[in-house]
Amino acid sequence: MEMPVRSDFMKDNNVEVKSLIIEGRNAVLEAFRSGKPVDKLYVLDGCQDGPVRTIIREAKKHDTIIQFVKKERLEQLTETGKHQGVIAFAAAYEYSEVEDMLELAKNKGEDPFLILLDNIEDPHNLGAIIRTANLAGAHGVIIPKRRAVGLTATVARTSAGALNYTPVAKVTNLKKTMEDLKDKGMWFVCADMGGEMMYDLNLKGPIGLVIGNEGEGVSRLTRETCDFIASIPMKGDIDSLNASVAAGVLAYEIVRQRMSV
Amino acid sequence: MEMPVRSDFMKDNNVEVKSLIIEGRNAVLEAFRSGKPVDKLYVLDGCQDGPVRTIIREAKKHDTIIQFVKKERLEQLTETGKHQGVIAFAAAYEYSEVEDMLELAKNKGEDPFLILLDNIEDPHNLGAIIRTANLAGAHGVIIPKRRAVGLTATVARTSAGALNYTPVAKVTNLKKTMEDLKDKGMWFVCADMGGEMMYDLNLKGPIGLVIGNEGEGVSRLTRETCDFIASIPMKGDIDSLNASVAAGVLAYEIVRQRMSV
Repeated sequence: MEMPVRSDFMKDNNVEVKSLIIEGRNAVLEAFRSGKPVDKLYVLDGCQDGPVRTIIREAKKHDTIIQFVKKERLEQLTETGKHQGVIAFAAAYEYSEVEDMLELAKNKGEDPFLILLDNIEDPHNLGAIIRTANLAGAHGVIIPKRRAVGLTATVARTSAGALNYTPVAKVTNLKKTMEDLKDKGMWFVCADMGGEMMYDLNLKGPIGLVIGNEGEGVSRLTRETCDFIASIPMKGDIDSLNASVAAGVLAYEIVRQRMSV
Repeated sequence: MEMPVRSDFMKDNNVEVKSLIIEGRNAVLEAFRSGKPVDKLYVLDGCQDGPVRTIIREAKKHDTIIQFVKKERLEQLTETGKHQGVIAFAAAYEYSEVEDMLELAKNKGEDPFLILLDNIEDPHNLGAIIRTANLAGAHGVIIPKRRAVGLTATVARTSAGALNYTPVAKVTNLKKTMEDLKDKGMWFVCADMGGEMMYDLNLKGPIGLVIGNEGEGVSRLTRETCDFIASIPMKGDIDSLNASVAAGVLAYEIVRQRMSV
């Protein structure tokens, strides 16, 4: 039995956002097989039959986050009441390719400016960063497939419409993507403690700005792949800025340097 | 009958935050009379007897936000089950005075740097801004008493501990406070469209940075009281940055100018 695919439209901050909840075994399996970007899969804990195992295999193949939950949780999430033990959340928006971002920069006659997120987990931070990327003139935002939040309805809403303009790409291996882009002449700077003061770095030219996870910062591998480590002046008593604020401060340091002759 | 005053301690992000829920008529009235900063009062809709009217009068006197709600809402909020038609939320932290901030700057041998919030409504934004204020070396954050979020547990948590260090003052009239501070030699800059590019303004010296409401920006009165209007470069398709990101970008432009000789 095919379950309906339901779309929600919510009005919030004058931004129309779309959330896709897919319920039922055939619908969820079809979503995976058609290549729809599924961010999260909820599966009834203990459910082990053939069709569910097939769905879990597809989810793993697509790097979808899988959560095994109790019946009560599924009952909270369901909107049709006919989930058959599986509920998937699909990306509200389509992902772009990194190539498209380089093309966009080229068409604008600008040096590429990309923002890479090393496992941002909070959808509000991701939305705010896409919003910042749009206004700072970045050509795209790159996020990893695993262990990070994807383009959910909350992200779309928090981006205040920026998701309609600024492309977002999801990549399997952030380090590999950075190395490919380095071969094309890009430089990478990450925000971390113990780096050079951001005002003293030359952040002009084709640049990728890397922002780390909310709690753990930039991962070691990513940090080692960066050309520079930039530090924001810290004059206070606590450890770090909010991730989306840090992204904003650094993105605008790049804007300032690009604007100055 | 006296109702107990309950304190919650939650561990989150390694920050200990305190939320104060006060339930029952005598406890709520006592909170107001003792001068405890109450942010919000929930009253059972239609409840019109003498004691409740007295509580509402006290709440109005203290500029507390009052919401008249249905019985079901109070049942959701209550933790003792004995709210008697009134539940108050008190500030999790104590407010400071503007004078204390000037004193703090003086003791550090620095020009005062204050951040004023013209009706920030989202507790996550307020928390992130207090966090930014701490790290940008601001001496305090000033918020208005009315139509704005106060120091709730969410704010404390989002501030990542900054609330323990950076003083926050609540003032009745933001314009009046700004005028008093102008008499003491401070300058005020607000973030708004149609101002001068922030890089072109001289933001050194004793300065107050004014950040507007999430949806409406800076109010007319506040804007007119400012000496400068600073604009952040907008290279994208949407209207504005997230309020806490805008505060971060501008606060760090002030930091940059203060650091440069």
